[in-house]
Amino acid sequence: MASVDVGVGLLGYGTVGAAVARMLSESGDEIERATGHRLRVVRALVRDPAKERSFAPRDGVLTHDFAALRDDPSIDVVAEVMGGLDPAGGYVRELLRAGKPVVSANKQLVAREGADLFAIASAAGVQLRFEASVCAAVPVVKVLRESLVAENVHRILGIVNGTTNFVLSRMERGGTYAEALAEAQALGYAEADPTDDVTGADAAAKMAILATVAFGSRVLLDDVQYRGIDAIEPSHVAAAAEFGMAVKLIGIATLADDAVDVRVQPAFVERAHPLAGVDGSSNAVVLQGDAIREVTLGGPGAGGLETASAVVADLVSVVGTSGTGFLQNDACWRELPRLNPARWSAPFYVHLDVADKPGVLGHAATTLAKHNVSVAQLVQHLEPGRAALDLVLHDSAAGDVDAALEELAASPEVLGTPFVAPVIAA
Amino acid sequence: MASVDVGVGLLGYGTVGAAVARMLSESGDEIERATGHRLRVVRALVRDPAKERSFAPRDGVLTHDFAALRDDPSIDVVAEVMGGLDPAGGYVRELLRAGKPVVSANKQLVAREGADLFAIASAAGVQLRFEASVCAAVPVVKVLRESLVAENVHRILGIVNGTTNFVLSRMERGGTYAEALAEAQALGYAEADPTDDVTGADAAAKMAILATVAFGSRVLLDDVQYRGIDAIEPSHVAAAAEFGMAVKLIGIATLADDAVDVRVQPAFVERAHPLAGVDGSSNAVVLQGDAIREVTLGGPGAGGLETASAVVADLVSVVGTSGTGFLQNDACWRELPRLNPARWSAPFYVHLDVADKPGVLGHAATTLAKHNVSVAQLVQHLEPGRAALDLVLHDSAAGDVDAALEELAASPEVLGTPFVAPVIAA
Repeated sequence: MASVDVGVGLLGYGTVGAAVARMLSESGDEIERATGHRLRVVRALVRDPAKERSFAPRDGVLTHDFAALRDDPSIDVVAEVMGGLDPAGGYVRELLRAGKPVVSANKQLVAREGADLFAIASAAGVQLRFEASVCAAVPVVKVLRESLVAENVHRILGIVNGTTNFVLSRMERGGTYAEALAEAQALGYAEADPTDDVTGADAAAKMAILATVAFGSRVLLDDVQYRGIDAIEPSHVAAAAEFGMAVKLIGIATLADDAVDVRVQPAFVERAHPLAGVDGSSNAVVLQGDAIREVTLGGPGAGGLETASAVVADLVSVVGTSGTGFLQNDACWRELPRLNPARWSAPFYVHLDVADKPGVLGHAATTLAKHNVSVAQLVQHLEPGRAALDLVLHDSAAGDVDAALEELAASPEVLGTPFVAPVIAA
Repeated sequence: MASVDVGVGLLGYGTVGAAVARMLSESGDEIERATGHRLRVVRALVRDPAKERSFAPRDGVLTHDFAALRDDPSIDVVAEVMGGLDPAGGYVRELLRAGKPVVSANKQLVAREGADLFAIASAAGVQLRFEASVCAAVPVVKVLRESLVAENVHRILGIVNGTTNFVLSRMERGGTYAEALAEAQALGYAEADPTDDVTGADAAAKMAILATVAFGSRVLLDDVQYRGIDAIEPSHVAAAAEFGMAVKLIGIATLADDAVDVRVQPAFVERAHPLAGVDGSSNAVVLQGDAIREVTLGGPGAGGLETASAVVADLVSVVGTSGTGFLQNDACWRELPRLNPARWSAPFYVHLDVADKPGVLGHAATTLAKHNVSVAQLVQHLEPGRAALDLVLHDSAAGDVDAALEELAASPEVLGTPFVAPVIAA
């Protein structure tokens, strides 16, 4: 089949942009063999066209004039690899309206403005793809949108932040949160300011994107309830090990009773679960549907080359589906309400420090039972003047657990604040 | 966008075929939203149209006349879910030549005749897809062909047979091979005649398909060197545990120095490796490429519904890429030689039973060294009148290891046959 030339525009030509240009060039034959098309970078928008680049484009490719890229009729598809909300968001909108398909690697943009962008793309009859915005080259968006179309995916569990998984994996081998974080920073797995990672905000943005795609309903970052790993102590990691579990920062998106719940928090994951063994800075996502039961995808969730690889895969997919009507309807085709977070249910792990007095254990059990919460496993350790209770609860509504713990925390026999985390059963 | 009707033909209407028809019907809206097309089963080829079916098609859909299906102009794409080589292979060829894209769930057909079918499809300018032929709904073929086009995937590691993984997982919890196999049969994870699974033949067929797709060169079932799990004893499982490893039946496809090696055998997998934790009848595949480093895909590798889900995903993908030139060049675009199997290298685990005499350990170490094989770890257990040596070797050529063990086996101090298995390092 004769090859067709496809002009590619790049918004941004930093680490990712240059790697995309290099891959399109070096893998040109493979891509042409797969698609029947030869992809060439025609123009790349940069602030300073004179700056030296790691992979130098041909003369005249770099420009600081967005209109020159937008209005270039030889550009068939554009990859947005500049990051940030502004001006990237405005550029992507203009390009979609001008009828150019866009591939974006921009997690913040897709998580915050995705619903609007999907609608614009749909109205213009062009594709918006964004594989690189979640878990880099792990093809979770493609699998959700293409392989599992008929699957009614109703639950997604994910380790979608490599920094926090590195820190928690490190803590499993001993040491405090502060030590593990310092090591992650020294090795380049965590930023100097790790706030976005350790608070769960980064994972929340990714889960918002996955939930939107899987459930077809707009889930904004603000809809995601999230909690980070900064309160995790060696004692929690040890308690998890005692129950045959690992502490992981888990994103959970649930579609139940036609309502959506998306949350990110430290969870206790049973050893036999596929997410328990995800080590170091890796990412992994479990997609649960009807016939497939569940499919797990894992790999490096970050990195310039990995991100560029996902961008190239999206460009190939745009070319391979162009003009067929595929993925051109609005990804947000319905409006589902948010599940009342108190009604979200799971088994939970609870840690209580209590006074070492007669009747305290009975009081704790009675209080839990009063709120419809029953205990599946219990381990009690005596410490000087106090007892530490580690409990695994049967499946319970989050609101009931919170109410029971609030009541317990108010009692003088309970010392400090109870710690609670959902359990992910294998 | 206005919906377009797509007529689907089915070759076979058993468990999988009926499930495909049901999914296309029940998920018709989701598929239409994703593709802009409404897929309807127009005709299904069966032996006995009068037989009762689990999901009854409309009147007139079932036929026993292949020509009626082949020549029906309202059929745009055909799913082959009948299995077997004959007549399925002939039907698929005729359909491709008649310009109809084909989706096949037939592992034996694709593994044995894939190269020929790819060439016919390419010449006719239509797609042949076969996701369901490997690992059911785990989308490994799609990810290889679409997401990793530019990745130079050079190594594939896979647990691609659920029966053997169930048996080995069971043996980890104690018991003999025979007991574990009997349990697998009782639970329906193994056939009454499990030969194809336990000898590694089934896994070899799947690895042949994956290697062909990944490396672009024809790999036939006969090119795969395979060994099953029937010689695995509780002592091997225990030895693996002692080294922090698990025994798994692993398929390994390697592209090195422009030559291909594909093999299936029991391997010792380090605990931290993603394949070590794959439990029960699950499947998982690790794809190693350039930028992505590695991506792991896992899930149930068999089952009627899971297979049907993969067939539906392929039908959706055919519709979504139709007319774009995507995946229409011959998947076997080059002819790579087979790597000399003796030159394939890995770290290896070796078990030797030796006479408990002075100098025996030295003799073993000297013999290994003479063949360029060096020892990384060694554990010696004394038993009455003999010693059991468990060794982990440094990366060595398979031929060197075999030559050293052959020489050792011929020595009177070595009792019985040495056991050898490659080690998969984390």
